[in-house]
Amino acid sequence: MIDAPRPAKPLIALTRGDPSGIGPELALKAWRLTREDPEAPAFVIAAEADHLGALARSLGIEAPIARVASAAEALEAFSRSLPVLDSKGGVKGAPGKPHPDDAAATIASIETCVDLVARGEAAAVVTNPIAKEILYRAGFAHPGHTEFLGVLAERLTGRKVLPVMLLWSPELAVVPATIHIALKDVPGRLSTELLIRTGQIVSDDFQQRFGVARPRLAFTGLNPHAGEGGAMGREEIDIIAPALTALREAGVCVSGPHPADTMFHAKARESYDVAIAMYHDQALIPIKTLAFDHGVNVTLGLSFIRTSPDHGTAFGIAGQGVADPSSLIAALKLAGRLARRALSS
Amino acid sequence: MIDAPRPAKPLIALTRGDPSGIGPELALKAWRLTREDPEAPAFVIAAEADHLGALARSLGIEAPIARVASAAEALEAFSRSLPVLDSKGGVKGAPGKPHPDDAAATIASIETCVDLVARGEAAAVVTNPIAKEILYRAGFAHPGHTEFLGVLAERLTGRKVLPVMLLWSPELAVVPATIHIALKDVPGRLSTELLIRTGQIVSDDFQQRFGVARPRLAFTGLNPHAGEGGAMGREEIDIIAPALTALREAGVCVSGPHPADTMFHAKARESYDVAIAMYHDQALIPIKTLAFDHGVNVTLGLSFIRTSPDHGTAFGIAGQGVADPSSLIAALKLAGRLARRALSS
Repeated sequence: MIDAPRPAKPLIALTRGDPSGIGPELALKAWRLTREDPEAPAFVIAAEADHLGALARSLGIEAPIARVASAAEALEAFSRSLPVLDSKGGVKGAPGKPHPDDAAATIASIETCVDLVARGEAAAVVTNPIAKEILYRAGFAHPGHTEFLGVLAERLTGRKVLPVMLLWSPELAVVPATIHIALKDVPGRLSTELLIRTGQIVSDDFQQRFGVARPRLAFTGLNPHAGEGGAMGREEIDIIAPALTALREAGVCVSGPHPADTMFHAKARESYDVAIAMYHDQALIPIKTLAFDHGVNVTLGLSFIRTSPDHGTAFGIAGQGVADPSSLIAALKLAGRLARRALSS
Repeated sequence: MIDAPRPAKPLIALTRGDPSGIGPELALKAWRLTREDPEAPAFVIAAEADHLGALARSLGIEAPIARVASAAEALEAFSRSLPVLDSKGGVKGAPGKPHPDDAAATIASIETCVDLVARGEAAAVVTNPIAKEILYRAGFAHPGHTEFLGVLAERLTGRKVLPVMLLWSPELAVVPATIHIALKDVPGRLSTELLIRTGQIVSDDFQQRFGVARPRLAFTGLNPHAGEGGAMGREEIDIIAPALTALREAGVCVSGPHPADTMFHAKARESYDVAIAMYHDQALIPIKTLAFDHGVNVTLGLSFIRTSPDHGTAFGIAGQGVADPSSLIAALKLAGRLARRALSS
């Protein structure tokens, strides 16, 4: 590959997400807003070209559609039109009214994008929001996006994958060690092994993908005041501290368990590169408080780069033209940044 | 009381807290910084006058001590010197080195301040931080400050009291429905009755003490995404929603249960006056992220006004002169504001 010409922009493969949600509208808006932005990557969306074209017209978004068949065509077209890998089908759902018959194409769009990255044609995957209930009804057997991408990564690499969710913003990067489970199930789900694997993956990916030479990981406690020496819960002593000891011995730079409430103000955030929280709200409350409209969801631990906007399908406002593309644009830019780094290293 | 002269400033009774923590230093600094501030109340501290005087000299804080015997003397002295209700004892602990022999006077300081308010001499109590472990060793039988004040309020009124902790800042007011218990015990401790009583007290006190004509209370869910219709936990359906129904029927303005992660960004905060969270970190993470150094702890449900700074004894920095009095000053000012309102209504 010596002397091979390097494209001016990395190419990102964007999934369409649920066609009845705000994903397709965000893709059109993101193209309009970033096509001339030198800091933004080019992207190609795997979707139904006719549906996207009709949506652009109905919303009055000036976004000409270019059906493309390769990454080269997509890169060539991007400055003038939104490149689409056309799945050629129709869409049964309407804005805000998802339809189970669209589920197969929603899943296929994800697979197409991962394939593009696996073949080296695209540098990263960015996913638009899906509606899990709709996919479940169509037989989708994975708890969510992240787990499905983990299975695809296992197929590609032949080895076991633990997908780790990172919420990233310029203000704060934070990982929930457990995610979409009831709060009462959190203490039982936490284990020293889970925290060690999570910490190792986060540290490795911050080095390799984010270029942080020695990432500083700060772990929260589970309980108020991190348990106050066992007075309010023992998980800090029995589960978290042993994981930190093991990670330290493996050369990972860790601190904690810290009381979660005093970890997220500006001064505290200077002391670490990424926080590892024990459960969903402990991670999501601070980042959505600090960076509501520009947080990015990144999946670590995969064999490829994947980011996504930090919101859902927003069926309630789909088709009205009011959806805010800030988070999708942030996801595309972060994917581009990570991809450029991967290309240059 | 018609035509009785009204003092220019309300008088606040300030406890000394643990004498080996930062409380006494904060009191000296707060006096220096607020004695000429027309928005700040006057205050009198119940403490050992000699100890305070020696601390002022050792830290180089110019704060002359005035031993006073009444509220009138305190108000008269305040512009020139820090008024002290002298408990006349000595202090055994040193900065950062608390001593169990000081516990009795720590508790007596709280009782003295509540007495002053009960007699109508002071308008509110502000408490400096205590170290619970030190008090426990001396036989203190209450889980913490708030519960002890609840007992004192019950003695004064003869009726059962549920003290409710409010964290207040200009950015956010939030109440944790459960507080200092292990996370695994939270789901079992929540009950519809607890949430109804909490909501009623918060609504009443926001009307009566804060002067909000129709307070809007926003309840969080317990689980990620507020349970997503029961898919990730049923407490929203079984416990929280019935409480909201009952509160609504009682004329309280409530909304929720909302996903906690999307409740605390600036736009969301405009939709309510106070958030009711289900547990410690769910309430404390957002307020300490937004208002780390100027949050105030307010106890609702008592027969008197009580505020306190939103931090602990900070033994690690006691005696060094580096403690930040912002939160104590915010607590004094809020107590003054609530007291002025009580005086004028």
